[in-house]
Amino acid sequence: MTSVQNSVCFTAESTSDGVLERDFTVGEVTGALWSPAPGSDGPAGLDRSPLVLLGHGGGNHRKHPAMTGRAHLLVKGCGFHVAAIDAPGHGGRPLTEHDKQEIAVMQAAMAAGEPVGPIVVRYNAYLAEQAVPEWQAVLDALQELPEIGAEGPVGYFGLNMGTAIGVPLAAAEPRITAAVFGLHWPDRLATLAKEITVPVEFMLQWDDEHIPREEGLALFDAFASKEKTLHVNAGRHKELPRFESDSAVRFFARHLV
Amino acid sequence: MTSVQNSVCFTAESTSDGVLERDFTVGEVTGALWSPAPGSDGPAGLDRSPLVLLGHGGGNHRKHPAMTGRAHLLVKGCGFHVAAIDAPGHGGRPLTEHDKQEIAVMQAAMAAGEPVGPIVVRYNAYLAEQAVPEWQAVLDALQELPEIGAEGPVGYFGLNMGTAIGVPLAAAEPRITAAVFGLHWPDRLATLAKEITVPVEFMLQWDDEHIPREEGLALFDAFASKEKTLHVNAGRHKELPRFESDSAVRFFARHLV
Repeated sequence: MTSVQNSVCFTAESTSDGVLERDFTVGEVTGALWSPAPGSDGPAGLDRSPLVLLGHGGGNHRKHPAMTGRAHLLVKGCGFHVAAIDAPGHGGRPLTEHDKQEIAVMQAAMAAGEPVGPIVVRYNAYLAEQAVPEWQAVLDALQELPEIGAEGPVGYFGLNMGTAIGVPLAAAEPRITAAVFGLHWPDRLATLAKEITVPVEFMLQWDDEHIPREEGLALFDAFASKEKTLHVNAGRHKELPRFESDSAVRFFARHLV
Repeated sequence: MTSVQNSVCFTAESTSDGVLERDFTVGEVTGALWSPAPGSDGPAGLDRSPLVLLGHGGGNHRKHPAMTGRAHLLVKGCGFHVAAIDAPGHGGRPLTEHDKQEIAVMQAAMAAGEPVGPIVVRYNAYLAEQAVPEWQAVLDALQELPEIGAEGPVGYFGLNMGTAIGVPLAAAEPRITAAVFGLHWPDRLATLAKEITVPVEFMLQWDDEHIPREEGLALFDAFASKEKTLHVNAGRHKELPRFESDSAVRFFARHLV
């Protein structure tokens, strides 16, 4: 029965602007897979199919506009496959009592104008404990698809909660060979970042009202990667410029082919 | 007689790969101007001609491979005009006794393994005092050329000594509307950077053996620009990745059209 649970089950399909989008489940995990539409050009000269995993931010879901936008850039710009899954308690996945409690604490802190960092760090670490094995099972299943296979390189792109999940995932998962992270505190992640040696692009906001710049810099500093790049932009937490998505696409184009 | 001295006098011309390269003098200053070769496509849809000024690094000259490489990227990628001038004492321009003395002190410090920062900072500031009015005279002269004119936006791109000259130039020169800087200490520049409000892209090396990262970050922090981006890469002072030149070209493409 395990093999059935671990297979990709497609539940919906649509094509838009040369991009095939398929919703899927792997066990209880809901996901989306974006691929070059049949008949469109694949990655020129590639005999393997790179795959980029997208991790969404807290409170969002697998098909948040930021995810679909990045997916379209990667599919159309590079011919890659791109997958996103809903984090536990996100995108319609059931909320546990613990989830509800932590969300209430977070909202109360926000309403009171108190720092949310310690709560977000703690809750994201809790979610990552479940999300990492889920991602690994989804990656196993996606690599069984004939159009992806187990030979191609794998990238990971996730900011905010997507970094809180992605850093432990990349530390645990040797199939990930390049990653884009950012916009997170170093607590609980810096130790794991020291185990990561693949090329990393990291983004932080210079005037982030939640994450002090020294803490963002400390997380960037922690990666053991010989090739790592930091992109800092003036602006607050949610003001990351759109052109940084294009930069991430170029990063994966350099490292996944 | 002043108007003659301040005109562009072309001394040599060649065309390579769609790029017209013309050596020139403005008074005693030697320079190079790169432009789209006649018959090649200009910047699509532009009714003005953007101009990018390139400042070379210490000990180099106007046609160092880094300058010609950047010039070709900007001409071919954007259809811009690009100009570089030799800094005082560089590229065959005469060395004063003071230049020789400072260079000897710098070489002695290097040979002894002592920090060169204080000497480089002091000498670059001395050169900038002469170079800023030279750049302004050259810009006046270039804007009299019919193919450039006085209406187009002007960018500045210079690292190392190119930043030591470019920061005071951009602070003094309202015609410069976007600038790429980097790889320099904040001393003598941070105060001027606080007067600069145009979009800035800044580059520093995370493992720079000459410039402590805190000092590089302090100079980035000093710019008053609302739009500013910092690119940090792992590696030593001279290991700036080639892809940062492509990034600078995209920066000017965003801001000079």
